[in-house]
Amino acid sequence: MTFRIGLAALLCASAVGAVSTAWAAPPMPMDAKTLEAKFDTLIDPAEMGGWLKLLAAEPNHVGSVHDKTNAEWIAVQLKSWGWDAKIETFEVLYPTPISEALELVAGPGAPFKATLTEAPIPGDQATYTKDALPAYVAFQGDGDVTAPLVYVNYGMPEDYLALERMGVSVKGKIAIARYGGGWRGLKPLLAQMHGAVGSIIYSDPKDDGYATDDVYPKGAARPKQGFQRGSVADMPIYPGDPLTPGIGATKDAKRLERKDAPVILKIPCLPISYGDAQVLLTSLGGPVAPANFRGSLPITYHVGGSPAGGQVHLAVKSDWSMKTLYDVVATLKGSEAPNDWIVRGNHHDGWVMGASDPLSGQTALLAEAKAFGALLKTGWKPKRTIVYTSWDGEEPGLLGSTEWAETHADELKAKAIVYINTDGNGRGFFRAEGSHAFQHFINEVSADVKDPQTGVSVRDRARARLAVTFAEAGGGGSGRGSADPATRAAAKDPSKDLPIGALGSGSDYSAFLQHLGLPSIDFGYGGEGESGGVYHSLYDDYQHHSTFVDPGFVYDATLAKTVGRAVMRLADADLPVQRYGDFADTVAGYLEEVKSLADTKRDEARTQAKLIGTNAYALAADPTKPYVAPTPLVASPPMNFSALETAVAKLKTSAAAFDAALAAKGAVLNKAQKVKLDGVVRPLDQMLLRPEGLPGRPWYMNMVYAPGRFTGYGAKTLPGVREALEERRFDDAQKYVGLTGQALDAYAVELDKATAIINGG
Amino acid sequence: MTFRIGLAALLCASAVGAVSTAWAAPPMPMDAKTLEAKFDTLIDPAEMGGWLKLLAAEPNHVGSVHDKTNAEWIAVQLKSWGWDAKIETFEVLYPTPISEALELVAGPGAPFKATLTEAPIPGDQATYTKDALPAYVAFQGDGDVTAPLVYVNYGMPEDYLALERMGVSVKGKIAIARYGGGWRGLKPLLAQMHGAVGSIIYSDPKDDGYATDDVYPKGAARPKQGFQRGSVADMPIYPGDPLTPGIGATKDAKRLERKDAPVILKIPCLPISYGDAQVLLTSLGGPVAPANFRGSLPITYHVGGSPAGGQVHLAVKSDWSMKTLYDVVATLKGSEAPNDWIVRGNHHDGWVMGASDPLSGQTALLAEAKAFGALLKTGWKPKRTIVYTSWDGEEPGLLGSTEWAETHADELKAKAIVYINTDGNGRGFFRAEGSHAFQHFINEVSADVKDPQTGVSVRDRARARLAVTFAEAGGGGSGRGSADPATRAAAKDPSKDLPIGALGSGSDYSAFLQHLGLPSIDFGYGGEGESGGVYHSLYDDYQHHSTFVDPGFVYDATLAKTVGRAVMRLADADLPVQRYGDFADTVAGYLEEVKSLADTKRDEARTQAKLIGTNAYALAADPTKPYVAPTPLVASPPMNFSALETAVAKLKTSAAAFDAALAAKGAVLNKAQKVKLDGVVRPLDQMLLRPEGLPGRPWYMNMVYAPGRFTGYGAKTLPGVREALEERRFDDAQKYVGLTGQALDAYAVELDKATAIINGG
Repeated sequence: MTFRIGLAALLCASAVGAVSTAWAAPPMPMDAKTLEAKFDTLIDPAEMGGWLKLLAAEPNHVGSVHDKTNAEWIAVQLKSWGWDAKIETFEVLYPTPISEALELVAGPGAPFKATLTEAPIPGDQATYTKDALPAYVAFQGDGDVTAPLVYVNYGMPEDYLALERMGVSVKGKIAIARYGGGWRGLKPLLAQMHGAVGSIIYSDPKDDGYATDDVYPKGAARPKQGFQRGSVADMPIYPGDPLTPGIGATKDAKRLERKDAPVILKIPCLPISYGDAQVLLTSLGGPVAPANFRGSLPITYHVGGSPAGGQVHLAVKSDWSMKTLYDVVATLKGSEAPNDWIVRGNHHDGWVMGASDPLSGQTALLAEAKAFGALLKTGWKPKRTIVYTSWDGEEPGLLGSTEWAETHADELKAKAIVYINTDGNGRGFFRAEGSHAFQHFINEVSADVKDPQTGVSVRDRARARLAVTFAEAGGGGSGRGSADPATRAAAKDPSKDLPIGALGSGSDYSAFLQHLGLPSIDFGYGGEGESGGVYHSLYDDYQHHSTFVDPGFVYDATLAKTVGRAVMRLADADLPVQRYGDFADTVAGYLEEVKSLADTKRDEARTQAKLIGTNAYALAADPTKPYVAPTPLVASPPMNFSALETAVAKLKTSAAAFDAALAAKGAVLNKAQKVKLDGVVRPLDQMLLRPEGLPGRPWYMNMVYAPGRFTGYGAKTLPGVREALEERRFDDAQKYVGLTGQALDAYAVELDKATAIINGG
Repeated sequence: MTFRIGLAALLCASAVGAVSTAWAAPPMPMDAKTLEAKFDTLIDPAEMGGWLKLLAAEPNHVGSVHDKTNAEWIAVQLKSWGWDAKIETFEVLYPTPISEALELVAGPGAPFKATLTEAPIPGDQATYTKDALPAYVAFQGDGDVTAPLVYVNYGMPEDYLALERMGVSVKGKIAIARYGGGWRGLKPLLAQMHGAVGSIIYSDPKDDGYATDDVYPKGAARPKQGFQRGSVADMPIYPGDPLTPGIGATKDAKRLERKDAPVILKIPCLPISYGDAQVLLTSLGGPVAPANFRGSLPITYHVGGSPAGGQVHLAVKSDWSMKTLYDVVATLKGSEAPNDWIVRGNHHDGWVMGASDPLSGQTALLAEAKAFGALLKTGWKPKRTIVYTSWDGEEPGLLGSTEWAETHADELKAKAIVYINTDGNGRGFFRAEGSHAFQHFINEVSADVKDPQTGVSVRDRARARLAVTFAEAGGGGSGRGSADPATRAAAKDPSKDLPIGALGSGSDYSAFLQHLGLPSIDFGYGGEGESGGVYHSLYDDYQHHSTFVDPGFVYDATLAKTVGRAVMRLADADLPVQRYGDFADTVAGYLEEVKSLADTKRDEARTQAKLIGTNAYALAADPTKPYVAPTPLVASPPMNFSALETAVAKLKTSAAAFDAALAAKGAVLNKAQKVKLDGVVRPLDQMLLRPEGLPGRPWYMNMVYAPGRFTGYGAKTLPGVREALEERRFDDAQKYVGLTGQALDAYAVELDKATAIINGG
């Protein structure tokens, strides 16, 4: 059960049903206010900095000595602060490189051997470690290939369409892509789908290097020899251990054979630095790259594909043995509702030292946990159980969180109210994404946390930035600007809640939200202290974080104050904090988007057919350059959205009724009613799951929130419909209009039951 | 008088008054068709290539031996082809460099001496010339200064606003700007207005160098040592000789003293290559440049302004003596209306060899002239007088055309029907800008010229490109895309005329259109063969043009066929070719734009005031960086557009009536009526002039078409109103609503007179 905090619920009554009307932070009841003020005093940035230095002292990848040491140290701390802490282990497939090679063997600049290691930085002792993994992406397919090189820009679907129009294919070749434009893992996957025999990914200085800022150690940006490690498992199919989809990777779990695991790539792949990439890209012949393919290296970018261009030898061989994960799980048992769980997590494994990613968030988690321990000693007891988790193996594929969630799926579905996640953190602006019934709650929390640089609330600062950004983009003019209506409204009207974004993937909430149907929230700060430049590199260390990302650890401390507040309010709330009108309005907005998308897709095919019919593509092309006519698009059949339209209308009605009832009568509910209400509200978001899951990826069962199949990190809302439209799978789109409508119908039915309980049922 | 061609006028009758309805190229009367077919056979690309080689053999700047030789050679050719050709000279102020220096004297990388010359290219003999001007911009202010360097991006007004917000000033410093974003001359001018003591302009490889294409001689793009010369006279005040504004620079003209000429800059300025610029930019400290300031050099761009950054010594000393211009003016006297002139021009001076700019267009002019000469021998005689002009001194400031137009202003206003201009030309797509009453005529001409690469008409090819570009920008979706309604319609519907753009400045039409009120058209081809990379450099030579810009000279020949057709049709037309409905519709569109602009400006100030009031700018800023609050915008008073609204409504009515009358009765007009009609239609566009001119620049008298005061090349339509709104001079805006309305009223009155004549008046 999820509850509003005492007095706040009463004060909110007047605003209920009027989701978008004036709202002011309601005063907290004296005891909660005092508690939170006390909590704030227990957060010590200097102590957090000390923890960060300790945790980030050595490389922390899965299987490393220091990663295990950290897990043990975290467990010891939690125990010492009064938590019931233990380490839970899983056995997962986790490849580490045995040997690797990348050489330019023919073409201009050959022979050239890529460095594949990151040079230490004088003055930053940590970077002299001998234990860092080399250039490496997890779950690529081992191999040894020699082939011509083709530059595929970001390596996203639209880039392959552009190459096709230039008459350039990657079939039998090695594709080199720059980072950005979509999730890393899609780059080798799409290369493989287009017939490439190998894949290289590099960080172009335009997106991630000297063009963005001075490079480390002078500035925060990626130095010439830095590269980005990461996972390339096909997580949009399922995250977690590749051998145990849908079940926990316990010692005796039934496992797939490695060759049958669909998320492991078939071709070799390596990430490289822009120092190395410049030599490879300079070797390319073929057409000059189109404008949107060009980065900031001092060269003319070509796409390759000409016989005289560069040939590359790429070889990767890995140790595919099983490794052990060390998840730390700690609980503070609830005094009134011990079977109601507030779960909160942050991972502890990093690609190398991982100071910003993920240990900055880990220090916030520790600070919260220590403060709760101290509060326990003053007599405070949470009404509900608080579960703090420190995940292992997030980097290679959300391994630790996914295996734990799959192992404890039944218990979590029965007990968990919400999962709250954090990850890397830095100086700057408050942000939150998550389940939209919690949007107002998140606004309330952020209105009560002070920004350490300006002294206003972190919500006011976030709003100021939104308003200025919006005005500078032309939104201050005649109502233009590309933001959605809710964002436009919030930018202009301080009485409106700031909208939160939807969760896609990229951190440990995925299994909770998208597989188990638990409401989830991801919190963080950033946008000023830049950690991006050393992301997943050797240089993401204590010195970089404390110099550039969060000097003084004040935003890491602010994150602890934010999440700690959210956890305490959820643990102690008297009534549900959710406002379902916000969720219904958001889903209604998504429906408008997919309907508009359907129109766009229909018009695209019509326009293209007309242009093909008038030979316009050929006439508009440069006759001296290779020209390939575009592949005709599948025409759109008529789409019928009525199942979704009806479901969304019903959802809005049910949500408004619930919000109004709770506001009017929540304060007078008796204990028995509250327990009954809890029984309906707690599992409500599980109604969003459909057992069919999404097309081709049944692990993802949430019909409202998913990561994109071909965007990776980015959220796709109403994904069964939206992605099918995007990919012109119109039969799927129509089918998922129905399935998504059924999920929302079931959700509204449960919401009506909850309303009936409040109304005396 | 401007006339439709015989049968075409009859056939067009059914479409008149329905400007946007289905239109198909009407068949030509047999004799005109035969004539044009014959004309086409007389255009010989190989011969044109030979002329280009000859004309571009040596540097051709004003005052050079070869520029004068070319003028004499052109006059001789024209005479030999049967034209009455002569050279008309003017005496103008034209500075040439005596000495210049640019050195980095302090800061990282110092000492460094900029090269200021362009190295020859092995294999391209012409580039070994000893007579090329060094790095140089005409009409900068001589000086010798040493000061810190500041990088000002494109050096446009919005860049200075951004610098102001960063707390960086150019006062007492030297501003380095990259080319692009607006006209060259504004860069030193705006630097000077902001207190800079010197100005440097360089070509960033992102806009003009290796990022755009392989560099010469491998490809067409600007090599590392190439720089762009040009004029920095403040031509948006007036073009032509700085000492004789508004009058011809004849030997005995009354002249300003040099110090009083407002168009000459006060600070020294030099253009440099990106090879040199990289050293200077690398020396800069201060804030990291914002994203839109960053080019493609392999550095982190900083804006400078820090004490440790680079200090530069900049010195320029010029020979300010008078030089002689050699304009070639040739006529073919009309057989029926010798006092009706069709004037056509292209300049012959270049910054160095000037093969693409301007001599490619010059060879088209010569080919047309030679073909007309040959047609004369077969018995053809133009009904009206054709005046062909080859201008000198266009590059330093439209000198030759402006002085000739000012000298012959009365005669031109009495006789000229239209001025047709060309300049540099290349492979690719047809384009035309000009006076919108000629839009339909231009569509007719381009529908009858065959594209040499595809065999379809150049109009069909231009439309195909527009349609594909528009569809790929999302316009094929749900009607989105940023084009104006007429362009959107033409992209989708082949029965619609392709809209032509408005003329700003940048070539020799300016005096005719904007000072004398003569309808003007500028024709050209381009977009595939790229001349931009060597623009105004040593490398714009015969080898570059024939290799990259127009191999085989087929588009230079196509330009001759296009302009030749236009000239013949205008010279022989029986009735006016103008369709005033197109002009009225276009002006109505401009009025909608300025009204929307007024709304935007009002909302901008309101939004800014609100954001200042809530302290949002400060809260959204990074507290660790310098922050300067934005300067409050002047609030908009209420604007009253009724004078323009009424005038435009009247114009539309009058235009529709004229078009309908001409279509219905044009074919039956008698000789006397035609002469009378000519007397009203020929000077009609002079009604667009107001004696007050534009605010601060009375030389520009056209109330519909002008170059922007602070954009330079770009056209500003309804400039008195539009620019005043943009610059928040709201009193001026209101005043010019009235003046522009008066000009359009006067225009409509004359148009009604013409209609009355057609209707038997």
